[in-house]
Amino acid sequence: MAGPEGLERARREMEKHRLDALVASSLTNVSYISGTGFFTQVTHPDRLAFVVITRKQAPVFILCGIEEAQARAESWIEGIRPYVEFAESPIAVLAEELRTLGVSEGRIGVEKRHLAVTDWEPLTTALAQAELTAGDVLFDRMRSIKTLQEIELIAEASLATDAAIRSGFASARPGTTERELGEVMVAQCKSRGGEAVQHLVLASGTNGFKVHASPVDKPLQTGDVVRTDFGMTWGRYHSDLARTAFVGRVSRQQDRVYRQLERVHQAVIASMRPGVPCNEVYRLCGRLFEESGLRYDMPHVGHSIGIGTHELPMLHPYDESLLAPGMVLMVEPLIRAGDGLYHTEDMVEITQDGNRIRSRSSDWSSPFVIGPH
Amino acid sequence: MAGPEGLERARREMEKHRLDALVASSLTNVSYISGTGFFTQVTHPDRLAFVVITRKQAPVFILCGIEEAQARAESWIEGIRPYVEFAESPIAVLAEELRTLGVSEGRIGVEKRHLAVTDWEPLTTALAQAELTAGDVLFDRMRSIKTLQEIELIAEASLATDAAIRSGFASARPGTTERELGEVMVAQCKSRGGEAVQHLVLASGTNGFKVHASPVDKPLQTGDVVRTDFGMTWGRYHSDLARTAFVGRVSRQQDRVYRQLERVHQAVIASMRPGVPCNEVYRLCGRLFEESGLRYDMPHVGHSIGIGTHELPMLHPYDESLLAPGMVLMVEPLIRAGDGLYHTEDMVEITQDGNRIRSRSSDWSSPFVIGPH
Repeated sequence: MAGPEGLERARREMEKHRLDALVASSLTNVSYISGTGFFTQVTHPDRLAFVVITRKQAPVFILCGIEEAQARAESWIEGIRPYVEFAESPIAVLAEELRTLGVSEGRIGVEKRHLAVTDWEPLTTALAQAELTAGDVLFDRMRSIKTLQEIELIAEASLATDAAIRSGFASARPGTTERELGEVMVAQCKSRGGEAVQHLVLASGTNGFKVHASPVDKPLQTGDVVRTDFGMTWGRYHSDLARTAFVGRVSRQQDRVYRQLERVHQAVIASMRPGVPCNEVYRLCGRLFEESGLRYDMPHVGHSIGIGTHELPMLHPYDESLLAPGMVLMVEPLIRAGDGLYHTEDMVEITQDGNRIRSRSSDWSSPFVIGPH
Repeated sequence: MAGPEGLERARREMEKHRLDALVASSLTNVSYISGTGFFTQVTHPDRLAFVVITRKQAPVFILCGIEEAQARAESWIEGIRPYVEFAESPIAVLAEELRTLGVSEGRIGVEKRHLAVTDWEPLTTALAQAELTAGDVLFDRMRSIKTLQEIELIAEASLATDAAIRSGFASARPGTTERELGEVMVAQCKSRGGEAVQHLVLASGTNGFKVHASPVDKPLQTGDVVRTDFGMTWGRYHSDLARTAFVGRVSRQQDRVYRQLERVHQAVIASMRPGVPCNEVYRLCGRLFEESGLRYDMPHVGHSIGIGTHELPMLHPYDESLLAPGMVLMVEPLIRAGDGLYHTEDMVEITQDGNRIRSRSSDWSSPFVIGPH
């Protein structure tokens, strides 16, 4: 969250885009600016919340009355306008506040990637004199450069998640179930400050071909590949790391594929520095896998992270953004081998002259073998 | 999830609404029809998934290739059309499939409450000959009447959650922190089949005025009101119950307010039977609180539940739906007293001639006092 610094960033972007007002509506953008947000924005999407930013006036936070006490306790924004759910339309309240601020006939950025058609239709009617435009990209740009505090928080969460996965692998043995291993990882992560599970993909053997498989009551068997892609929340931020291990022993073929994955991963990261286009990083990854004789068919090889689990920029063929200092990229090559998916993921901070890997609490350059103890 | 039965329900609704096609896009509606869904539909909203239903042809499941293996393993739908993320537009793929099905110039219901403006704009262009209409209400109606299997699953989850909260309260004492109490409730719920925490509101003393407060490292103090509103997932379904307890002792005033809450709660439930309008139930609740001299200012007093945590109908002043057999309502009066929020919530199944409370594993008619042991 950027708080008042976020407001300044927003105003600089608004100036570039000649906007009179910018309206945050998604959980992530509302949280980024206000310092708070409500899980009901996701579970009850009709219960809209907005932060209205203008060039000079104090921001206005529109929210359902049910959330008022939390907002007053947690947000630095003083102008809070609660509405009564079902009795008042949040869209009508938004239009009214924009009128009060004198910008209802101006150029207004809204989150077109977030607002539903049922909200958009009455909004265009209520603001018939305004020029409504997509404001999403302004938030994307603000959030793509992390504050120092954000970088340290994400790095701390990443290192803790890495250590938790390592502890989980170290505690397991052939016969441990996927579910048991997952529970150790979660408990280890909690003991290091993780709060709630954001995603826990964990699969062994043939289960492993599902990209987003949940752990089940299946015992790990000697010879299995085990893959996890795991993240928890730290306040409003997320961790997200992937690791691959082998049960009981590692075959020559598994060792070869794992080391190729790791080699490509390190070479891709080594290419990342300010000025390099994101899609060039993606293409390099594909080329290196091809040269190793491995099939690479994932649509992206990484993404930024923050209040959201996937933030921009992303390392995919159509993202032409240039890497810049202060960006954080989760780099995550994943390949399909004959016996499962091999996957690794690390947090890479773009620095003035290159990058730093911020998520390795121990050495993953060789295959990790689970038990027998 | 209703699987093929859901398809039949959808077709009956489509006939009533004269639709040639109905397109599910939200996680809940995609899951309801297909039997599977992807958490990335929520965390990565750009990664769209659709189930396309026509009057006679087999349904088509459009999804990101990353999710293909899961869909093939879990869904009964055979017609799966994966798209390559970033390279293909899911909206263009949807339009193409509707053309292949011969309905691209027909009347098509889409989820206007779910589709974002950025998806809606290209969709209206790609389907310029179609009549696009809001299909949300068809799904609302299908899902409002639960199958027998759904009712039993929600009842089982509700009873387990109730027992877990009771165990948590019974294990606590003055000095136990909110966070510790929350952890016991979660562990107890998991031991009874709960999978992941959906929401865990838990607050004591003055923290209690936030409607959605998370548990913190604050010890319970003698005299505190403790309120929890807690739910976990059971497969794709949810539990959601609220309970209120008192630490160390219960004052005469606390006892009085608690018993009034419980009395109003039981009287509201007693009024619920087929044919009664939802808003009448809400109004009765407000009237009963008023007669007890208690201020009631919540915008709703209950909601259905299922794959979503809030489903329709809802018990609020503007929902005129009539209660019907097979509906499930979570009835949850909440009042603000001087020392915190008092809240209770139960699962009520509407039967042929009245209703059944399905969530009380023990007696909550008297105030529950936490320790000292």
